[in-house]
Amino acid sequence: MFEEGGRLKAIYGADKVYDFTLGNPTDEPPQAFRQALQEIATHPVPGMHRYMSNAGYAETRGAIAEVLREDSGEDVQADHVIMTVGAGGGLNVIFKALLDPEDEVIISAPFFVEYKFYITNHGGTPVVVQSREDFQLDLEAIGAAITEKTKAIIINSPNNPTGVVYSGKSLDQLHQLVEEKSAQYGRTIYVVSDEPYAKIVYDQVKVPPVLGHIRNSIVVTSHSKDLALPGERIGYIAVSPRIDQVALLVDGLVFCNRILGFVNAPALMQRLVAGIQRESVDIQAYQEKRDLLYNHLTSIGFEMVKPEGAFYLFPKSPLEKDIDFVEAAQKHNILVVPGSGFGQPGYFRIAYCVDKAMIERSLPAFTALAKELGLPK
Amino acid sequence: MFEEGGRLKAIYGADKVYDFTLGNPTDEPPQAFRQALQEIATHPVPGMHRYMSNAGYAETRGAIAEVLREDSGEDVQADHVIMTVGAGGGLNVIFKALLDPEDEVIISAPFFVEYKFYITNHGGTPVVVQSREDFQLDLEAIGAAITEKTKAIIINSPNNPTGVVYSGKSLDQLHQLVEEKSAQYGRTIYVVSDEPYAKIVYDQVKVPPVLGHIRNSIVVTSHSKDLALPGERIGYIAVSPRIDQVALLVDGLVFCNRILGFVNAPALMQRLVAGIQRESVDIQAYQEKRDLLYNHLTSIGFEMVKPEGAFYLFPKSPLEKDIDFVEAAQKHNILVVPGSGFGQPGYFRIAYCVDKAMIERSLPAFTALAKELGLPK
Repeated sequence: MFEEGGRLKAIYGADKVYDFTLGNPTDEPPQAFRQALQEIATHPVPGMHRYMSNAGYAETRGAIAEVLREDSGEDVQADHVIMTVGAGGGLNVIFKALLDPEDEVIISAPFFVEYKFYITNHGGTPVVVQSREDFQLDLEAIGAAITEKTKAIIINSPNNPTGVVYSGKSLDQLHQLVEEKSAQYGRTIYVVSDEPYAKIVYDQVKVPPVLGHIRNSIVVTSHSKDLALPGERIGYIAVSPRIDQVALLVDGLVFCNRILGFVNAPALMQRLVAGIQRESVDIQAYQEKRDLLYNHLTSIGFEMVKPEGAFYLFPKSPLEKDIDFVEAAQKHNILVVPGSGFGQPGYFRIAYCVDKAMIERSLPAFTALAKELGLPK
Repeated sequence: MFEEGGRLKAIYGADKVYDFTLGNPTDEPPQAFRQALQEIATHPVPGMHRYMSNAGYAETRGAIAEVLREDSGEDVQADHVIMTVGAGGGLNVIFKALLDPEDEVIISAPFFVEYKFYITNHGGTPVVVQSREDFQLDLEAIGAAITEKTKAIIINSPNNPTGVVYSGKSLDQLHQLVEEKSAQYGRTIYVVSDEPYAKIVYDQVKVPPVLGHIRNSIVVTSHSKDLALPGERIGYIAVSPRIDQVALLVDGLVFCNRILGFVNAPALMQRLVAGIQRESVDIQAYQEKRDLLYNHLTSIGFEMVKPEGAFYLFPKSPLEKDIDFVEAAQKHNILVVPGSGFGQPGYFRIAYCVDKAMIERSLPAFTALAKELGLPK
C-alpha cells in the first residue's frame, strides 16, 4: 500500500491524493516523549543500550503494572508484564507460548488480517466467526465455535477496522462463556485482548478493562498508536494475575520472546515510555477528524456504525463488490482498503490518522464519488 | 544467567564475582553513535517514529549495501538488504522464509544454542556436525550430512563460542560443496552466515567476505557487538545478488519480517546506524583483554585454540565433565558457561566483553582454581 500511494502521488501531486489506507499516524509523539528522548540523549545512562532480562526493565514493567492495577483493580505486578517488540511481536510470542499443534484460535470478523498469520506461524488454526451487525461480539456464535481444540479467543477493542468498543457487559458474558467452556473441556481457554487503541476513544467512552472483567485474559498492546511510535516497535503483554499457574505462563512467554529472536523490546524505547504511561497523542484532534468524515460521509449517503474509538471508519460498500468500490474510489484519488482484506466483504476501511487538511481536501472527492455511484440510495 | 550473577554479587560484593557468562558488552557505543543520537533528539525529523516499508529505510539499506559492495566486490544494492530486529530476529525471518516442513539445516558444533530453536520454530530440523579439532569447518563432515532435505548450512565466523575465523579457502571449498550438492539434488542449498562479530578481529586478521566467496549466501548480522547496542535490537539481512530469483527471496524475507510481528527494525536505530557503518567499539581494547586472559590461562595450564576474533575463549575443561568444572570455578566466584551449552561437552566458554579491571581481579582466582585442579597436567 505504501508503494501504490507513492505511485499516485508521483503522478497527481501529494496534495491531490487522499490516502486513507494505512494505520500509520501522521501525528508526532507527545511532547513528554520528545523531552524524555532529548534528556536521555544529552545525559546518557551508562549501560542503557545493553541487554536486560528478556522480559524487559523492571522499572518499565513496574510503571505499566501500576497503571493496569489502577485501571482494572486487579493485583497486577511487574512480574505480570513482558515488554515486547510491538503488539505484533507480542501476539506472536503469545501464540508461540500457548499453541500446540491443531489448537484453534477464534477470531471475530471483521479483523486485522495478520492475526491469521500470527496463529498459523505457530501451528494453530484460525477459526473465524461473524460479529453482530453492529460489530459487537456475537457471543452465541463464539460459543458455537468453541471445541475441545480451542485454546484462545482474540478480541480487539477499540476495533480495527470498525472502531467499535466492546461493552463491559459483553466482556462479562465472554468471561462467563470461557469459564463454562474451559470447565466443560477440562482445559483453559484464554482471551487474548489486542488493544493498541485503548486510549483512543471519544464522547467520554471508557474502554472496560479486560483484566478486570475476564479472569483468563492476556492483554497485548503497543505504543504505536497512543504515543505515535509505530516504527519503534515498543509494546507489552500483561497477563491476568488470576490465571492458574500464572508464573509458568510468564516464564513461557519470556522464553518465547527470546527464542523467536525478539530477545527483548528495544532498550531505549522501554526507558522512554516508562515515565509517560498516562500520556497520549491528542485524542480531541482524532475525534474532530472522525466527526468531520463521519458527518460528511453519512450526509452524502454512506452507511456505517459510528465508531467510538480507534481511527477507522468501516462503511458499507455502495457497490456489491468492495473491490469494485475501491477501484471506483481510486479514480477519484481516494485510497481505501476493501473489507475483504479484514474478512468482511461488502465494506471498506478508512484510516483517518492523517492530516486534517487532507481530510478536508478529500471531502469534495467523496461527494463526487457518491454522486457517480448514485448515493443516497 | 543474569539472575545467578546477581545472586552471587549480592552475597560476595560485585567486585568479588567474576562473571564471564554473557555476551553483553560492558562497552558503551562509539562516540559517533552518541553524537548522532543527541543530534536527532535535539533536532527531530518529522515522521521519524512512523512505520516505513517493512524492509526498512532506503537510506540505511543503501549505506549498508555500499559497505558490503566495497568489502565483497559484489554488486550489492539497497534492495538486497532488509533491516531486522537484531541477528536473532533476522535468523528467524530467514528460516521462516526458507524452510518447508522437514527441511534440514546443518550446524557445526560448537554453536550458539539458540540456532536450534530458530530452525525448529519454523518446522525445520537441525543437523549438527562436529567441526575440526581447531574448530575450523569440517567440510567432509558437512558434505556427508547433506541430504535431499538440506535447505541451508549455518556458519558463524568469528565464531561464538570459539573465536575462530574461517579462512577464505574454507569458504571457497564450502561454496564448491554447496554448488555440487545443489546440482546433485536439484534444489538450492543456502549458506546462512551469522556474523555479528565480523568487525571484532585481532592481529590484522581480516574476515573474508562471505558474499564474495559463496554464491548462494545470506548474511545476517547485528550492531549488538560492533556498536555495543545489543538491547536496541538493530541488525540486517543481506542476500547475495548472485542467488537465482533473488528478488523473490527478498520479497519472502520482507513478508516474513512483517508476519512474524517484527514488522520493521526499530526506526530510530535504523536512522542512527546509517551514517556510522564504518565505526566500531575499541577493538584494540578487546585484543588486550584477550591477550591478558589467554596468556595467563595458558601459562597456568589451561589449553585452548587462540581466538582470532569475537570476545570469547573456549578452553578445554580440565575436569572430564564440563558441568563439574563450572561448579568448581563457581566456588572461586568465577562464572563461565559449560561447553555442553554449545553442543560441545568437555569445554567451557569465557566471555571477556567485560571491564579490564574485572579480568585483572579474576586472574588470582583462576590461578587458585588451576592449582586446586592440579594444572598443568
